[in-house]
Amino acid sequence: MKDFFKVMDMEQVMALRARYRALPDEAVPVMETLDRVLAEEIVSDIDLPDFRRTTMDGYAVRAGATFGASEGSPAFLSVKGSVRMGEVPDFAVGAGEAARISTGGMLPEGADAVVMIEHTESLDETAIEVYKSVAPGQHVVEVGEDFSRGEIVLNRGRRIRPQEMGVMSALGREMVQVYRRPVVGIISTGDEVIPIDQAPRQGQIRDINTYSLAGWVRRAGAVPLTFGIMPDRPEALLETCGKALAASDMVMISGGSSVGTRDYTIEVLDALPRSQVMVHGISISPGKPTILAETDGKPFWGLPGHVVSAMVVFAVIVRPFIDRLSGLSEDLEAVRAVPARLTRNLPSAQGRVDYVRVRLSAENGQLHAEPILGKSGLIHTMVRADGLVRIDRDVEGLEKGEAVQVIPL
Amino acid sequence: MKDFFKVMDMEQVMALRARYRALPDEAVPVMETLDRVLAEEIVSDIDLPDFRRTTMDGYAVRAGATFGASEGSPAFLSVKGSVRMGEVPDFAVGAGEAARISTGGMLPEGADAVVMIEHTESLDETAIEVYKSVAPGQHVVEVGEDFSRGEIVLNRGRRIRPQEMGVMSALGREMVQVYRRPVVGIISTGDEVIPIDQAPRQGQIRDINTYSLAGWVRRAGAVPLTFGIMPDRPEALLETCGKALAASDMVMISGGSSVGTRDYTIEVLDALPRSQVMVHGISISPGKPTILAETDGKPFWGLPGHVVSAMVVFAVIVRPFIDRLSGLSEDLEAVRAVPARLTRNLPSAQGRVDYVRVRLSAENGQLHAEPILGKSGLIHTMVRADGLVRIDRDVEGLEKGEAVQVIPL
Repeated sequence: MKDFFKVMDMEQVMALRARYRALPDEAVPVMETLDRVLAEEIVSDIDLPDFRRTTMDGYAVRAGATFGASEGSPAFLSVKGSVRMGEVPDFAVGAGEAARISTGGMLPEGADAVVMIEHTESLDETAIEVYKSVAPGQHVVEVGEDFSRGEIVLNRGRRIRPQEMGVMSALGREMVQVYRRPVVGIISTGDEVIPIDQAPRQGQIRDINTYSLAGWVRRAGAVPLTFGIMPDRPEALLETCGKALAASDMVMISGGSSVGTRDYTIEVLDALPRSQVMVHGISISPGKPTILAETDGKPFWGLPGHVVSAMVVFAVIVRPFIDRLSGLSEDLEAVRAVPARLTRNLPSAQGRVDYVRVRLSAENGQLHAEPILGKSGLIHTMVRADGLVRIDRDVEGLEKGEAVQVIPL
Repeated sequence: MKDFFKVMDMEQVMALRARYRALPDEAVPVMETLDRVLAEEIVSDIDLPDFRRTTMDGYAVRAGATFGASEGSPAFLSVKGSVRMGEVPDFAVGAGEAARISTGGMLPEGADAVVMIEHTESLDETAIEVYKSVAPGQHVVEVGEDFSRGEIVLNRGRRIRPQEMGVMSALGREMVQVYRRPVVGIISTGDEVIPIDQAPRQGQIRDINTYSLAGWVRRAGAVPLTFGIMPDRPEALLETCGKALAASDMVMISGGSSVGTRDYTIEVLDALPRSQVMVHGISISPGKPTILAETDGKPFWGLPGHVVSAMVVFAVIVRPFIDRLSGLSEDLEAVRAVPARLTRNLPSAQGRVDYVRVRLSAENGQLHAEPILGKSGLIHTMVRADGLVRIDRDVEGLEKGEAVQVIPL
């Protein structure tokens, strides 16, 4: 048997991420930052809140005045006035006094707690009974309790969620520096592959990878740029690769990476200027015939033509490279993974990492991962799958009931 | 103590979803369908594949000709020709014959299996030795093995992932019917709330909810439409509510829904034409002072002003209503939830459902949920949180080590 591939371990391939840096940053309105990656450290320039505010509707009081109050023996307080929302109260609250206050209002001078309106009874405009005692600070947010001036609120490299949009708004950040989204060029190859608006003749198949990979690129927070289907001829492929490289931060060709009569990808990648093939084969399944070159400083992938292999390689290998270009600070795969238990034994070949498609079901708060078996050329296995389970290189297989980590698909 | 709210159980509120239907559908290019909800049943009008294709590079053979072949005793086959990709082979393979074939190629008449190239040795242009036997059908995808003609491929109401984009492409679906995305109007209220480009004076706070809720609406696959900050005056609010209703499929006002001196939301919702308050208070925490009206056939929410309460109510209550308008067929909350174990005891009040913010960490393949305690007015608790844990109504609390379901944030 010949050594058809210069096969590399997955860990060696993943280590190549270190060659790449986050793309330049750009300023974006905070309203448009969902799922973008923060390119600056957000430091609070204010105390948040910068006044003592209440979290309840009720009466601002001195807590001491309520001590011992109960339904049977209410405390009796005189109402000094009402706090107007958004304004500094122009009066103070003394012992035996209270001020009407609504959620979010500023505590008057002298008050240190708020009694919920439900625990009071208004006797008339100027007097209330309080049925429950409050502790100092109760129902009050102190100055700087959320964030204090000078505090680091959000770190660079963080994926922005709705709550991060909220906190940046609280700090008055109309514009935020985020990393530019990677543009990923997508090229399909194969003389048997036809555009989706054509009817396949016998022996032909419509282009699946352009669309599913574009979906994956979007899901990874990047921007797909498609270049259609190239015939398996080096000259045509070379020209398209050059165009794709010029317009993208990373390029993926799918198809043509098996050892076959029409395997021109390596040839083309070698022929591109400032190009070096770094990986020719990865010891994973599916996805072994994956190529990674570096061309003009950019990652250039030759993905398997099999639709399932291409998607699996994208999910477990290409995506972490996109995360790197996106400026994401952590490897999020572990966070994305979901724990589950296998529903049956899974054999595996040693010497390679296996990724098995699974379907998830929940029972008594436990997720079960049911392996989906099927040839890697069959897209229906991916449609049925909810995730991938990894079987490590030096493991002979996994047993029924074993705890596994599921990478969502 | 007065009955300040006409409080409803969460289940009663969720049952009100049945009043709403999916929005009308629209045709969208398959390339733009990621995360959209399918509004038609996708049925295969072809066999996929519609020819027998190989999943490997190698030689198409009659399996019988390889039986008993081994390294020591190879089978000897004559090479009849090469299969051209995308074309119907113009020759047949007989007993003792083989045809060169690349991944994705069509099997010639007579062949029923493929020998991987790694298990052969080419003797000259016309003869090979085969070192390993193959079974009939090995490395071959049969006609219709992925999808057969007339088969339901994807159901209506399904969220479209990259693999679904791929399968629709395979079937030649350039345009796909998806449900229109709900437009969700967002109004902030509160005299203490100021636009984010202004510097707050004492007693004022910048508008957080407009931005965090817009982020949540996007995350739910809907389109946010913001109307800024309304002062707590019924006339102004009424006018803006009317505008928001006309332009949206659902409206959310945040703030002003507590029982307080400035509680005009109910008043305004009552004053709108064809409007009925359905829910005034929900027995959950945080989020009790939530209002749901139906106005002109559309859900109209009064969310708490507290930033955390507003987000929690959105995540656990409003979002399922958006899913309904989006045409999503299943309640996906269970699927979204991730199993974990609590790191400490969590007390809870009976008679209401509690949602506790938690931070997740992984250890030995097990996720641990660490409760984040903090006042619901503090946004930093949401920034630190990875998810929410639900404590059911009639439960006194949860114990350290207990299995919980975490709703991701």
